[in-house]
Amino acid sequence: MTDMEQMGKRAKAASREIAALGTMGKNKVLLDIADELLKNAGNIIESNKKDLEEGRKNGLSAHLLDRLMLDEKRIEAIAEGVRSVERLPDPVGEVESMKVRPNGLKIGAKRVPLGVIGIIYEARPNVTVDAAVLCLKSGNAAILRGGKEAFYSNIALCDVMRSALEKNGLDPDILQLVPDTSRETAVKMMKLSGYLDVLIPRGSAGLIRSVVENATVPAIETGIGNCHVYIDKDADLEMAANILYNAKCSRPSVCNAAESMLVHKDVAEKFLPMARKKLDEKNVEIRGCEKTCEILKDGAVKASEEDFYTEFYDYIISCKVVSSFDEAVAHITKYGTGHSEAIVTENYTSAQRFLDEIDAAAVYVNASTRFTDGFEFGFGAEIGISTQKLHARGPMGLREMTTVKYIVYGNGQVR
Amino acid sequence: MTDMEQMGKRAKAASREIAALGTMGKNKVLLDIADELLKNAGNIIESNKKDLEEGRKNGLSAHLLDRLMLDEKRIEAIAEGVRSVERLPDPVGEVESMKVRPNGLKIGAKRVPLGVIGIIYEARPNVTVDAAVLCLKSGNAAILRGGKEAFYSNIALCDVMRSALEKNGLDPDILQLVPDTSRETAVKMMKLSGYLDVLIPRGSAGLIRSVVENATVPAIETGIGNCHVYIDKDADLEMAANILYNAKCSRPSVCNAAESMLVHKDVAEKFLPMARKKLDEKNVEIRGCEKTCEILKDGAVKASEEDFYTEFYDYIISCKVVSSFDEAVAHITKYGTGHSEAIVTENYTSAQRFLDEIDAAAVYVNASTRFTDGFEFGFGAEIGISTQKLHARGPMGLREMTTVKYIVYGNGQVR
Repeated sequence: MTDMEQMGKRAKAASREIAALGTMGKNKVLLDIADELLKNAGNIIESNKKDLEEGRKNGLSAHLLDRLMLDEKRIEAIAEGVRSVERLPDPVGEVESMKVRPNGLKIGAKRVPLGVIGIIYEARPNVTVDAAVLCLKSGNAAILRGGKEAFYSNIALCDVMRSALEKNGLDPDILQLVPDTSRETAVKMMKLSGYLDVLIPRGSAGLIRSVVENATVPAIETGIGNCHVYIDKDADLEMAANILYNAKCSRPSVCNAAESMLVHKDVAEKFLPMARKKLDEKNVEIRGCEKTCEILKDGAVKASEEDFYTEFYDYIISCKVVSSFDEAVAHITKYGTGHSEAIVTENYTSAQRFLDEIDAAAVYVNASTRFTDGFEFGFGAEIGISTQKLHARGPMGLREMTTVKYIVYGNGQVR
Repeated sequence: MTDMEQMGKRAKAASREIAALGTMGKNKVLLDIADELLKNAGNIIESNKKDLEEGRKNGLSAHLLDRLMLDEKRIEAIAEGVRSVERLPDPVGEVESMKVRPNGLKIGAKRVPLGVIGIIYEARPNVTVDAAVLCLKSGNAAILRGGKEAFYSNIALCDVMRSALEKNGLDPDILQLVPDTSRETAVKMMKLSGYLDVLIPRGSAGLIRSVVENATVPAIETGIGNCHVYIDKDADLEMAANILYNAKCSRPSVCNAAESMLVHKDVAEKFLPMARKKLDEKNVEIRGCEKTCEILKDGAVKASEEDFYTEFYDYIISCKVVSSFDEAVAHITKYGTGHSEAIVTENYTSAQRFLDEIDAAAVYVNASTRFTDGFEFGFGAEIGISTQKLHARGPMGLREMTTVKYIVYGNGQVR
């Protein structure tokens, strides 16, 4: 049995404790985690300094070093995040409906934890705590595998959380961190079928691809977003410019940011200069089709075919003038990734058709794609945004970290 | 591009037609399929004769040949099955709730088809029609890969269904049959990511294992059932004997049949002879633990450790006398496959604890495990029984063959 399988086995055994704990018990653990994070802030900051030192040696950019850095204030924010998860309603145990069959059997679907959730991520150390407490609150054990940049910080944060579990009389193996950030170990983790009930990769397109290719564990693809804003011929152009600007510029590094705009030919002459002016506020580069370049002149550069497939995660946007609603839908169907798509229009039929015909996790009329988010959708939290169709689609909150089992009350029924 | 990828590409393109068709259009197709099956019964029976001939040459048992055989009466039954699916409510398009966020965004989760469903099966030719019409009714395109024994029958059945699609002005590639029953082609199908939205294997444990190992497409494991009946110390023993007999004997070849019984030591002396007598009606072999053999003498043979892991699919059952409720739960947790588990008891706390502590798709109090079935659960149909936790657990009906997309109505919201 490999080390990874040993971890899986321990997680599976420990998962029964957290699944059976009940809301009050889980909430107590979460509040203790928040307290212990604050009490141990000194240690955590010490460990974080090691990561920062390594990062500087390895030439991480100032931007990445800042994302990595933990100080008292950031640890307070992390602890406050834990408290906010503590306050969320617990989805576990709810029987959504109990039906009576003609033979008298009472059949209900009861919401239960998934079991053991594996999470592979590449991001900031705060994700370690976020992901862990969402797993705990939904009654799941977790195996976390963070990125190498936050190695020492992640160990320190997990130690604190594990000791909070222990203090509550629970098996600390409910929460385990993979003590190795090699690619080989990540692939081993993807193959832990029988131990992991689901694997959630959070990170680059490369990581997601590796999971699709290697995982034998059921996995949920997250966060690939080539999102479009389509400005229809009947759009309120002022509103369209605002929505486009927000979708592109409010946070270009996230998956729900717009990467492409489509403009109906009837309004292109008028709208493109408006868009150009608005996008100038952030010096956005427009990579446009021939028609776009014709209208915007120096305001756009020529887009390649590749550009229409690209998630820039930057102040860059591709732009195509389309000759009809149908061309817009066909373009999104071809180039989109099924994340978030928006139309701006005052036309009733165009709005309804867009909602019906676009196949994506979230489809918007007259609003920014940036709202695809667990908090904005009212879930109170988010473990990721699913861009696949099985199990969960769009923002995944605590409910999406559970499954159901059928409970059946009989009085001697046979078939 | 391989042949398999070509099929995937055509299915993906065609899937948009069936997804957009609407309930009336889909129902019309289904009724036409039922009619055409009856009209073409002669051709179908001719093709089926080829399969039967091949089967005889290859030494298939009389039992298997009978399962394979199609005659007028069986084709009528298949057509009637299609009509019953036509009458089911269509899950597609329903918005289960539309919530308004504080910023005025209206967010609803709309039920939509999955897209393209792949089904690999090894069973009788009627599965070809069952599976196809469930996919169509739920708005999905389908790629079917049947077993080699029914090769010619499956081609004939699919041709009929495809011509019904064509007659309705639809792309016949909404429904495709893989024209090759080799293992290599099946593995290629498991790797059709980007084209298949989900793969549902229906068949032997070997097939399911192959899917877990090879699939890059999201798959749903189905139908592995090592189901237990636990007779608690507070059981109504008469009821227990009836439930046990039904769970084991009403249809031993199916996944929801019981393969093992656990008996509390306090009632073992009294219950085991009752069970033996009842199971004598079908000459069931009991493979028991030491204590069982002590009580039943010649009425049981000694069980091996392996027997407790085995799905016999036959008139054989393993039996263990347990010294406590906790031992029963631990035994099921160790040996069970998470399909269907039953307790027989009059004790309130034992019943509730069993429902809480057993981790399975369906957990029963005082009823036979044989009820885990889409029809018995009131879903009106069934594409399989999921024994995994993602997406669907337990019987999967039309609803489980769909996903959701979030539709968002705004009036200019930005974030």
